[in-house]
Amino acid sequence: MSVTAAQGFTAAGIAAGIKESGGADLALVVNTGPRLAAAGVFTSNRVKAAPVLWSEQVLKGGRVSAVVLNSGGANACTGPQGFQDTHATAEKAAEALGVGAAEIAVASTGLIGVRLPMDKLLPGIGKAAAELSPHGGEKAAIAIKTTDTVHKTAVAQGDGWTVGGMAKGAGMLAPGLATMLAVITTDADVDATVLDQALRAATRTTFDRVDSDGCMSTNDTVLLLASGASGVVPAHDDFAEAVRTVCDDLARQLIGDAEGASKEIRVEVVGAATEADAVEVGRTIARNNLLKCALHGEDPNWGRVLSAIGTTAAAFDPDRLNVAINDVWVCKNGSVGEDRDLVDMRYREVRITADLSAGEESAVIWTNDLTADYVHENSAYSS
Amino acid sequence: MSVTAAQGFTAAGIAAGIKESGGADLALVVNTGPRLAAAGVFTSNRVKAAPVLWSEQVLKGGRVSAVVLNSGGANACTGPQGFQDTHATAEKAAEALGVGAAEIAVASTGLIGVRLPMDKLLPGIGKAAAELSPHGGEKAAIAIKTTDTVHKTAVAQGDGWTVGGMAKGAGMLAPGLATMLAVITTDADVDATVLDQALRAATRTTFDRVDSDGCMSTNDTVLLLASGASGVVPAHDDFAEAVRTVCDDLARQLIGDAEGASKEIRVEVVGAATEADAVEVGRTIARNNLLKCALHGEDPNWGRVLSAIGTTAAAFDPDRLNVAINDVWVCKNGSVGEDRDLVDMRYREVRITADLSAGEESAVIWTNDLTADYVHENSAYSS
Repeated sequence: MSVTAAQGFTAAGIAAGIKESGGADLALVVNTGPRLAAAGVFTSNRVKAAPVLWSEQVLKGGRVSAVVLNSGGANACTGPQGFQDTHATAEKAAEALGVGAAEIAVASTGLIGVRLPMDKLLPGIGKAAAELSPHGGEKAAIAIKTTDTVHKTAVAQGDGWTVGGMAKGAGMLAPGLATMLAVITTDADVDATVLDQALRAATRTTFDRVDSDGCMSTNDTVLLLASGASGVVPAHDDFAEAVRTVCDDLARQLIGDAEGASKEIRVEVVGAATEADAVEVGRTIARNNLLKCALHGEDPNWGRVLSAIGTTAAAFDPDRLNVAINDVWVCKNGSVGEDRDLVDMRYREVRITADLSAGEESAVIWTNDLTADYVHENSAYSS
Repeated sequence: MSVTAAQGFTAAGIAAGIKESGGADLALVVNTGPRLAAAGVFTSNRVKAAPVLWSEQVLKGGRVSAVVLNSGGANACTGPQGFQDTHATAEKAAEALGVGAAEIAVASTGLIGVRLPMDKLLPGIGKAAAELSPHGGEKAAIAIKTTDTVHKTAVAQGDGWTVGGMAKGAGMLAPGLATMLAVITTDADVDATVLDQALRAATRTTFDRVDSDGCMSTNDTVLLLASGASGVVPAHDDFAEAVRTVCDDLARQLIGDAEGASKEIRVEVVGAATEADAVEVGRTIARNNLLKCALHGEDPNWGRVLSAIGTTAAAFDPDRLNVAINDVWVCKNGSVGEDRDLVDMRYREVRITADLSAGEESAVIWTNDLTADYVHENSAYSS
């Protein structure tokens, strides 16, 4: 499972002492080749953490030997010194692994605005390098957790090749990548261009359509590394589909473990004039705090869906809007539809379908309800 | 105070039986002249309630004899029948007052997607008409409350003329008018064009910059009526300033009484290249759920301010952003500034200043914190 499901990768997860709790906080993922191809997608937040600025440069070369990931600190809004800390992290890993620092990607997650304790992080890299194992994927996935209650891994099998991955993220989940951090590996024999195409196509309809709380992170990073160790060159479509499957699986796990959530809400917009309209409407519904509260209270409040749709620029006629909650069409033609008492809201998953009656396009956005637990977790945890 | 502070107006507020609680739920505001000038500003939500569609038409004539307002039902998403109900409401008030229905504005607030109980509302209009009084302003303000804990009125005195008003609104407060409902009256001798200019200028920097929970109502309505009863023609600037003062006072009262809130948060964006940039950044900060939770927890979490700013399209350099919380510059040049422990968060009002270092423009947006009480109130009350 995880990043060591595919051949040609080793990983480790250790406690370096970055987290005050003493929990695991440093992960290392190493591509042992023969290929060292890589692609990456990063947050679209214009306030980018130092490791994002660093790794964006590294990924331009399409070649990554290893990824160092830490929890316990985001190294965001830390100025030039924060960037130097990321650089030193890459140098240390390069030295430990006998490769060049320009091939080391770095990812960090945790509190914004605080420098990392480099006196603990740098020795931790040596310790992690010593524990690298082809079975280390689970430990790596555990070491990148912050408020996650479970670690997240996924795998998809091709014909003689494998795609596997890990992700972390439980809050500050929103578009422009919802992940916070994900590393996906494959032993398929594919180059950086194929990786880049597959990764961008996959994230566009998976991580990018998870919007738990509308808040976009400064650190979101998704990396896809290929070792070529299987020696198999898969068909592009098969490979892209496997990458999409792993991304979708991990994205859904993020929604399933979102901070304080009691519902996983699937917002499907159909009948849109364009896919962009469908995404805009879906995201706007997903971000409506009043609706998210109502769904938490198991109230199929379709009026709040309509008032959210009404704030978008999408093509629609208010008198032709239809809304179903858990497949009961409670709103038809912009007005009262089937009896709302028919809606069974007892289950964790809620399905909202918004039909714009304006075309043939559609999109799905996943979100969560808004709960008192979310408020408690985020008013107490300074992250 | 309220809508009867100015001469030339009578008002009433009664219990018509629209609310199941039996509380006051119907208000009538009548302009007794000699002028019947009026202006209105309405929600920019594209899903508009029937009374908004009706009143927009009425206001095009610039002449309003009376306003009928009800709580206990929004008459939104109620289809053609809902529009007929609004029409019947105006006809009934016109009959009771001996004027034309085309001069009667209607405003409703409450649950979306449910038709109004016309068998109670229509008799209530006759009852309210019988109770009209030049001292009825307070009762009218009370009758339009929904989840408001207090009724809201304001007054500004000119030289021989007065502007007074009432407002309701405690949830679904967001731009495109935050009010839900407000009626402002004046005895100044001004025409509909002057009213329109003064009202649009005032709402742009008051109601439009209140954003409690990012959710825009289908029913927001602000009306400004002039009786001319003072016989005084004020200077345009003086009149506009008085209208702005009343709007600002009412808008602040909405934030002060927002559902479940424990903090009133003033977000001031300075150093912006354009006013539009300042408003966009202010609104984005005001809508960041993670920040709103942190402020609820009295945590001066400036990292969440920066990550919100980073999602906007405003002109700024991430390395030149400065943020103060309660006047302590906790973030300087995009990185750690003064000691966050210096920030005193004990009081209800919180001031966030975001300096984009990109120009001379500024804007203020008011919002609230996100609390467990907000979640409870909005997961239980189907509105």
